[in-house]
Amino acid sequence: MAKKRVLILGGGFGGVYTAKTLEKLRSDRDEFEIALINKDNYFVYQPMLAEIISGHVGVFDTVSPLRSLLRKTDIVVREVESIDLKNKKVITSPGFKPVRSEYSYDYLVLAVGNVTDFRGLTGLTQHALRFKYLSDALTLRNHTIRTLEEAAVESNPKLKEALLTFVVAGGGWSGVECIAELNDFVRHVARKYRNIDPKMVRMVLLQSDTRILREMEETLALTAQEVMQKNGIEIRLETRLAAATGDEAVLSNGERIPTKTLVSTVPGNPNPIIEALDLPKGIGRGGKSNHRIKVNLELQVEGSDHIWAIGDCAQIPEPGDTTGTKFCPPTAQHAVREGELTAHNIVAAIRGGQKKQFGFKGLGQMGVFGHHSAVAQMNMGGFKMNVKGYLAWLMWRAVYLMKLPGWDRQVRTMTAWVTASFLPTDTVQLNVQPQAGIVQEHYEQGQYVFNQGDLGDRLFIIIKGKAEVITTENRISKKLGELAAGQFFGEMAMLREGMSTRMAAVRAVEPLDVLSVPRQDITALAEYIPALRETFQDVIRRRDAENLQTLHPVAPAPAPMPVRAVDEEDTIYIPR
Amino acid sequence: MAKKRVLILGGGFGGVYTAKTLEKLRSDRDEFEIALINKDNYFVYQPMLAEIISGHVGVFDTVSPLRSLLRKTDIVVREVESIDLKNKKVITSPGFKPVRSEYSYDYLVLAVGNVTDFRGLTGLTQHALRFKYLSDALTLRNHTIRTLEEAAVESNPKLKEALLTFVVAGGGWSGVECIAELNDFVRHVARKYRNIDPKMVRMVLLQSDTRILREMEETLALTAQEVMQKNGIEIRLETRLAAATGDEAVLSNGERIPTKTLVSTVPGNPNPIIEALDLPKGIGRGGKSNHRIKVNLELQVEGSDHIWAIGDCAQIPEPGDTTGTKFCPPTAQHAVREGELTAHNIVAAIRGGQKKQFGFKGLGQMGVFGHHSAVAQMNMGGFKMNVKGYLAWLMWRAVYLMKLPGWDRQVRTMTAWVTASFLPTDTVQLNVQPQAGIVQEHYEQGQYVFNQGDLGDRLFIIIKGKAEVITTENRISKKLGELAAGQFFGEMAMLREGMSTRMAAVRAVEPLDVLSVPRQDITALAEYIPALRETFQDVIRRRDAENLQTLHPVAPAPAPMPVRAVDEEDTIYIPR
Repeated sequence: MAKKRVLILGGGFGGVYTAKTLEKLRSDRDEFEIALINKDNYFVYQPMLAEIISGHVGVFDTVSPLRSLLRKTDIVVREVESIDLKNKKVITSPGFKPVRSEYSYDYLVLAVGNVTDFRGLTGLTQHALRFKYLSDALTLRNHTIRTLEEAAVESNPKLKEALLTFVVAGGGWSGVECIAELNDFVRHVARKYRNIDPKMVRMVLLQSDTRILREMEETLALTAQEVMQKNGIEIRLETRLAAATGDEAVLSNGERIPTKTLVSTVPGNPNPIIEALDLPKGIGRGGKSNHRIKVNLELQVEGSDHIWAIGDCAQIPEPGDTTGTKFCPPTAQHAVREGELTAHNIVAAIRGGQKKQFGFKGLGQMGVFGHHSAVAQMNMGGFKMNVKGYLAWLMWRAVYLMKLPGWDRQVRTMTAWVTASFLPTDTVQLNVQPQAGIVQEHYEQGQYVFNQGDLGDRLFIIIKGKAEVITTENRISKKLGELAAGQFFGEMAMLREGMSTRMAAVRAVEPLDVLSVPRQDITALAEYIPALRETFQDVIRRRDAENLQTLHPVAPAPAPMPVRAVDEEDTIYIPR
Repeated sequence: MAKKRVLILGGGFGGVYTAKTLEKLRSDRDEFEIALINKDNYFVYQPMLAEIISGHVGVFDTVSPLRSLLRKTDIVVREVESIDLKNKKVITSPGFKPVRSEYSYDYLVLAVGNVTDFRGLTGLTQHALRFKYLSDALTLRNHTIRTLEEAAVESNPKLKEALLTFVVAGGGWSGVECIAELNDFVRHVARKYRNIDPKMVRMVLLQSDTRILREMEETLALTAQEVMQKNGIEIRLETRLAAATGDEAVLSNGERIPTKTLVSTVPGNPNPIIEALDLPKGIGRGGKSNHRIKVNLELQVEGSDHIWAIGDCAQIPEPGDTTGTKFCPPTAQHAVREGELTAHNIVAAIRGGQKKQFGFKGLGQMGVFGHHSAVAQMNMGGFKMNVKGYLAWLMWRAVYLMKLPGWDRQVRTMTAWVTASFLPTDTVQLNVQPQAGIVQEHYEQGQYVFNQGDLGDRLFIIIKGKAEVITTENRISKKLGELAAGQFFGEMAMLREGMSTRMAAVRAVEPLDVLSVPRQDITALAEYIPALRETFQDVIRRRDAENLQTLHPVAPAPAPMPVRAVDEEDTIYIPR
C-alpha cells in the first residue's frame, strides 16, 4: 500500500507547528510522509522582526532554517502558483530551470497566510517600504543607514530634513513596533554622524483611528502613546496615508510630509492562491467574500474530508461562540495551537481515530514600543492582569525567547541581547537593494521629476497625468511646454555620448505616473532593435532642428512665461 | 588662516590607518582636518572575508563602520568618479539626488586599491561570481545555499550534478581560502538535506601554475595541496578558466565542467581612477604601464609635494633594494604601515618636520585552507620559521583577531567563533540577489539557451554568434532554422496572454552572446513605445501566417533534418 502524503503549504507558525506535531505523532511504521512548501528556506519569528531594524538581534539570530526545525519533512523551497483540487496536485513556480513542478497530496494543509499588497493605493507599490518579511526588515535597516549617510553629506537643508524624516503608516502592533525600533536606532546612532544634529530627526506614526493599538485595552494603549510621544514620536491620529511619492508622504488631510523613508503596515490582503480556490469562504464587510477559507472547529474545510486551513488564510469560529459571528484572531499563539490540532486530526483521519475540536481562547497580548517599554494584557484561566513598563518588557523578552523555536536560535538571540547591551550599535550599510531596472513611479502635483542640471540617468514615459517642462536662467523660469500620456521625456541627456546633465526641469502639473527606464537598458535595446533606435533618432533630429530650444513641445513652443524660481538645490557641498 | 584639508580616497587598510594615525597626531590646535571618501560606510577585514561564506563569523562581525573607527574624520560615502589634480578637487558620484559633488583638498592620499574586472574574459562578467567585497562573500553564501535547495528538489541527475559542483579559479590565497571554506560549509550542511548525498558534492580549484600558493615556500604550499585534496577538493594544476557560461566552466584544455557556481579570483586590475590620472606610473610586463603610481620611500608621488599613494594602487620600492626592480607586496601588513608612515609625513609637510622613509620588510605570511588547517611562514628580525597544521591555525586566529580593528568587532568575532563551535551551522538563505533585468549572456557551442517546454520568461536578441531552432516530437528532433546577429527569438512564448511555454528549443551553433530581456520589461516598453509594439506585432503576424510552424526562419524553412533527441529534462519531481 502506498504511503499517504500530507502536504503543507506555508512555513509560518501554522505550517511549521503542523509539520512538527505530525513528525512527533508519526509512528515507527511510518504510515505517512510529510512535505512542506515555502518560498523561503527559513521560518521567520515575526514577534522579533522589528528588533532586526535596530540590530538588537542579528539578521539570522531569530530566523530558523526549516530543515533544522523539521528533520523528517521534505522541504520544498518554491513559490506555490496554484492548487488543482480535483487532481490533488499543487503547482509551484520554476527554480533555476524555467519549468514548473507538481506535487501531489492525499491530505492538504493550507497555511499560506496573507500578503501585503498595495494595489489601489496611489504610489505605495512604487515608493513605500513594507514591513512583513525578513527581507523587509533588512531593507528598512539598510535604507535607514543610507539616509543617515546621505544626510551627513547633504548641504541642501530641505533635502536633509526629508532624509531625517521617517513616516510609518499603521497604528497596530506592526507599525508601533516598527517605528519604536526605528526611533531608538536612529536617535542613538545619529550622534555618531558629525554633520547630523540628532534634534533634526523626525518620526511620524499615522493612525486612521482615534487611538493606536485598537486590539489592546484603552489604558494600555494610552500608556504606549504617552511613552512613544515622550520618546520623540509624533502620533497623528485620525490621519491616513493617502498617497506616496519618492519624496513625500501625502496625508488624508492634504498635508504633505517630505520624507525619504515611508513604511506602510497596512493590514494583510487575501492571498491570491486562496482567492483562486473554489472552497467555501467567509463573509467580510459589505457582505462580500473575505477570501478566508471557512473551516469548522476541527479546522477542516467545510464539505471536504482531506483539506485543512489554518492561520491568517482561514476563518476559524471562536470556541464557545454561539452567534456564528466571532472568529479567532490571526495571532501566533493561535496559529501554533491550530497547527498542533490539525496534525492530531490528520492523524485521526489516517488512522481512523477521534478528531479534536479547537478550544483555545488566547492567553492575552503583549508588545514592545521602545527599549525597556512594553505592555502586556494577560488572560490565563479566567485570571486577567495588565502589566506595563520595564516589568512588561522583561516579561516580553522572557516569553518570546522561550517560544522561539530551536535551541540554537535561543542561544544566538540571548547572546545578541547580551552583547548589544554593552557593544556600540552597529551601522554597517549592506547594499542589498537591487539596482532598479524599468520601474513605475508616481509624482504628485508640483513635484519635480528632475531638476535642471541633474545627471541624465533615466528616460521617462508618461502613463497617466501631465507634466510641464521648465528652464531657468538667471533665476527666472520659463515654461516651455506640457507633456501628456504616451509622450516621453528626459531622452536628451541620455542619447548623447557620455552622461550629461538635464537642460530643463520637468514638474508634475497633476498627479503623474511614469515608466522610468534606466539609461543602460534603453541604450542596449536601441542598439539591437532598429525600430526603437529610429524612434530616438527621430526625436534627436527634431530636437536638433529646433536648435535645442525646447525639450519636447507638444504644440509650438508657448510664449515664455515666468514661473517661480526653482530651489537652489545644486549647491556643492564641501565638508567643513 | 584656513585649516589645511587632508583628503583620503579609499577605506581599506591603507586609507583607514592613514586617517587613524592622522587623528592621533592632530594637536589640540586642530591645525588640519581630515576627510575620507569610500563607496561603503564600512571597512572590510579582508583576511576574514572567507569565513563569512561558511558562517563561522556573522556578516557584520568583522566589518567595522568607518565612523566608529574614525571619530574625528569626515566620512563621505560616495564613489569617486574623477580627480582634478590641477584644481585640487575630487568629484564623486551622485547619491539620492542625481547631482555630482566636489571635494577640495590641500593634501591627497590615494589608497583606492585595485578592482576586479572580467573585461576580455569570455562570459565571466555575466556568469562568474567575484570574491573581493563583503557583498561578494554574502552573495556566494546565499547562492550556495540556493544551489543546495534546488539540488534537493531536482530530479534530473545531470542538473543535480551541476548544482552540486563548485568551481573556483585562482590558486592564490584568495582562491584557496574561498574554496576551503566553501568545501567545509557545503560538505557539512549537505547532510541536512534529505535528498542530497554528500558524496555527490564536487569541488574544483583551477590554478594556471604548477602548484598553488606561489607566494609561499614550496613545502608549505605542497602541504596545503595535500590537505585540501584529502578534504575532497580536486586541484587542477596548469589549467586556466577559458570561458564561462550559465551552466559550465570551460577550461583551457577544452574540458567543460557543468556547474552552477563558478567563482573567479583573478588578480585585481588597475583602478580606472588611477589609470586616468596624469601621474608617473610603474612599468609592468612588456614595458607597458602597470597603472600603479610611482612613489618614493617617503610614499610621496614623484614630482609632487602634496600627493601620497599607498596600498595596491601604488608602486613602492622595496626598502634596501638597490636594483630598482623590487617592490612592496600588496598585503595588509604593508598597507597598515604605509598608512601610518604617510600620516607622519603629511604632518611633517604641514608642520615642517622631518619626513620618514619606509623600511618595513614584512613579518611573513599565513593563511587557512580548511577548518583547523593553516600554514604560517614567519620572518621576524631575521628569524625565520615555518609552522603548519592545527598550531598554525590557532596562530592564524590569534594574530588576526588581535589585528582586527575595533574592540567591539573583536568581541563579536570571538563570540561568533565560540558559538559556531557548538551551534549547528546556519543555512538561512537570504534573497539578496537583485532580480536580473536586461542582461547579456554567453553560451558555448552546443549549449541550449532554452528547451522546448520551458516557461517563456525572457526575450533574446543575438549580439554575436549563431543559434539553431529545434523542435522535438516523439523523441525525433528537427532543425527549423538558424539565427544570426541582430535577430531575436523567444518572443512567441512572451507576447501571448499569460505565461506560456517554449514551442521549440534554441541551441548555440557557435559561441553565442545574447541580450536577454525579461518579459515584464519588454511588455511594459511595448505598451508605451508604438514603434516597439509594431515590431513585435509584425513578428506575431508573420508567425501566425506561417501557422506557427517555425520560430524564426531566416530563410524558407529547411527540410526537416534529424538531430539527436533532446535530453529528458522535464520529468516532474514528486518528493518521496
